[in-house]
Amino acid sequence: MGEGALFVAQSGGPTSVINSTLAGIIAAAQKKREIEGIYGLLHGLEGALRGEIIYLDNLRQEELERLAVTPGAILGGSRYHLREEDLDKIASFLIHHKCRYLLLIGGNGTMETCLRLQRVMQQKKAEVEIVGVPKTVDNDLVETDHAPGYLSAARYVALAVRDQLMDLESMSRFEQVRIIETMGRSVGWLAAASFLAVDPINVCYPIFIPEVPLDEDEFLSFIDKIYRQQGFALAVIGEGVIDKQGQPLGIQPFNDMDKEKGCHVVRTGAAENLARLVTERLGLRARAQVLGMNQRSFSTCVSSVDREEAYEVGRAAVELALQGGGGNMITLQREGCLSKTGFVSLERVAGAERKLPLEFYDSANKKVTPKFVEWIMPLVGELGPSYLYRGEIMRFFSWRRENQEIAWCGGINLWPELG
Amino acid sequence: MGEGALFVAQSGGPTSVINSTLAGIIAAAQKKREIEGIYGLLHGLEGALRGEIIYLDNLRQEELERLAVTPGAILGGSRYHLREEDLDKIASFLIHHKCRYLLLIGGNGTMETCLRLQRVMQQKKAEVEIVGVPKTVDNDLVETDHAPGYLSAARYVALAVRDQLMDLESMSRFEQVRIIETMGRSVGWLAAASFLAVDPINVCYPIFIPEVPLDEDEFLSFIDKIYRQQGFALAVIGEGVIDKQGQPLGIQPFNDMDKEKGCHVVRTGAAENLARLVTERLGLRARAQVLGMNQRSFSTCVSSVDREEAYEVGRAAVELALQGGGGNMITLQREGCLSKTGFVSLERVAGAERKLPLEFYDSANKKVTPKFVEWIMPLVGELGPSYLYRGEIMRFFSWRRENQEIAWCGGINLWPELG
Repeated sequence: MGEGALFVAQSGGPTSVINSTLAGIIAAAQKKREIEGIYGLLHGLEGALRGEIIYLDNLRQEELERLAVTPGAILGGSRYHLREEDLDKIASFLIHHKCRYLLLIGGNGTMETCLRLQRVMQQKKAEVEIVGVPKTVDNDLVETDHAPGYLSAARYVALAVRDQLMDLESMSRFEQVRIIETMGRSVGWLAAASFLAVDPINVCYPIFIPEVPLDEDEFLSFIDKIYRQQGFALAVIGEGVIDKQGQPLGIQPFNDMDKEKGCHVVRTGAAENLARLVTERLGLRARAQVLGMNQRSFSTCVSSVDREEAYEVGRAAVELALQGGGGNMITLQREGCLSKTGFVSLERVAGAERKLPLEFYDSANKKVTPKFVEWIMPLVGELGPSYLYRGEIMRFFSWRRENQEIAWCGGINLWPELG
Repeated sequence: MGEGALFVAQSGGPTSVINSTLAGIIAAAQKKREIEGIYGLLHGLEGALRGEIIYLDNLRQEELERLAVTPGAILGGSRYHLREEDLDKIASFLIHHKCRYLLLIGGNGTMETCLRLQRVMQQKKAEVEIVGVPKTVDNDLVETDHAPGYLSAARYVALAVRDQLMDLESMSRFEQVRIIETMGRSVGWLAAASFLAVDPINVCYPIFIPEVPLDEDEFLSFIDKIYRQQGFALAVIGEGVIDKQGQPLGIQPFNDMDKEKGCHVVRTGAAENLARLVTERLGLRARAQVLGMNQRSFSTCVSSVDREEAYEVGRAAVELALQGGGGNMITLQREGCLSKTGFVSLERVAGAERKLPLEFYDSANKKVTPKFVEWIMPLVGELGPSYLYRGEIMRFFSWRRENQEIAWCGGINLWPELG
């Protein structure tokens, strides 16, 4: 392959491991004689439009190690929707600066951009290898077992929901219902992951995903039934849940600005609306909790598998580009508990969206399936210590009023010596 | 001292280490010959009203170890406001069940309850040692260096805000302003702790606390100035921030129910309102992030000092009760980087509120002082790996458009060989 510069950009929103991918790319590229200069574009391809670039060749090993554990996207993310004339300018900029390899780290929108840019480059007869590098907290990229970023967000959601369940159980005399909203504009992967760390014996809660329209009456009957069973009820919803008419349950505070700027809509507010519904219709105190940006940024409990895989897809992207593998996206292919990298044509990925499959979600019972748990558990990492559950100490429970005693466990009087 | 049973209850909201305190109490009490039976009251003193108790004598070492790392309050928290007739019933219940020692784990409301109950007990000529055991995420208990629960919440806030700053910086082309809301109904301790893990060289953000009324114009001028300096602006506010008229900025969704049931008001919505204000007045895209219940429940990154101290105050409470030290609350007294337990009369604690002192908060600049950092840093625990900051790689930044090149670092052309 010919010689030239390598350009890299981070696109879309950050994940807690997207910088690990960048570190993998830089480390691999620094070793290649064929690469003359490693450049980072600031804020996705906007960096090429504005001519804002950073020279990455000189980053030291120690700096790369710090980069690999840094949340956010150090080059800057982007939600700018590129017009055709933008692509033309970007192509000219890259050609002018002797770009031979272009790696774009992003989700399915970014993969579409890769394809569009590749067509413009081909029209200009430029020899540029464009490789897509997967990244998404939503896990909505097709043709890969999973995408870097998802597992860490999943781990955060799992740990947060586990502990909020313990918290809610404690406070059931004060507040009875909690609705937790996860990311997932149109897919339920993160909402599903909420189940991973909870105690499946003692606790029951429903998960509502954007793929399946939410029926208000059905939702309320789940809450009501669980509340009656255990004295409190929690539900997890993906932020993009829709009603039976296909309308999102969340209000859309960024809407106007989004339409104007052509970038995609941020949805939030679904949990708030559902909590209000619970209070109005069931008369229970209900609180909404939006897990928010922490899902993609909180770096203290990332999945170590995720961080390593993120690094690895970066490294693999450099190799593929140098082998002339432009026009592809790096993938993760599962082999038992491990994943190895592979690649797939951008054509098969661009614009497609990977829904949570029915084999992973039991729509009737609003639960994930054992198959989902089996799939994700080896990837998500150790989920912390064993708790003592209230159910365990309830074996010593007794209801005593005055001299009367009714023991909880099958009517056995646990303390014949007292009372 | 005489013999009899020990009763314990957890009151108010949970913290991520309140069960560690309970474990400390049970472990210490199990070793005491003088104690005939260890009983947990469910949901604070409501457990005595309803006659709902759990026998804790039989918990095994292995169970206590799990209890110590379990979030939530395993006996159940309570926000029920006790009336005088309730206290009378509770006293009768405890006397009937030969209660000799009563330990209440809670905040300043609970300490007031301890005092009230003690008076009723004295009227009934009952020999009961009532000891208060401190717990609060807000850190608003007086007469103790800090209270168990605060440090872990502080650590969570610090880690979350650090990473959200990195996240926001990444996305500054899409959204420019983020308002993060911490717990702290009337005190700014948790908002202040947000500063602990951020990079003080590269990042600047203001902290607004409930103790100091928020002036909207001043707030906006902080945001505007910081945005102009660094291209994005984050602010941290305590949920209970008030305006210049003394009105809370947060809406109060639980209000009606709270008034009815006599328990205290939950405030939220201040961040949402301020984000809206920023968009309206400054035309910047602003997002609110409420850190929410995770602050008191997320157990994966508790401060280990906090967990140990929580256990220790529990143990100390048993010792004090057996020495006839009823009428006191256990305290933490600072000796350099370590704390040891002490005690203080409930009279001096009950109903009092510990504000963030002026020596810890620079009201003019909306920052914490070095003295605050010095005070809290040894307690809060290791705050994770060193990041690579964008400022560090900006030394390699270049702004290039067509053939023109303007290097960022003092006009030095970094790549004479190119362009």
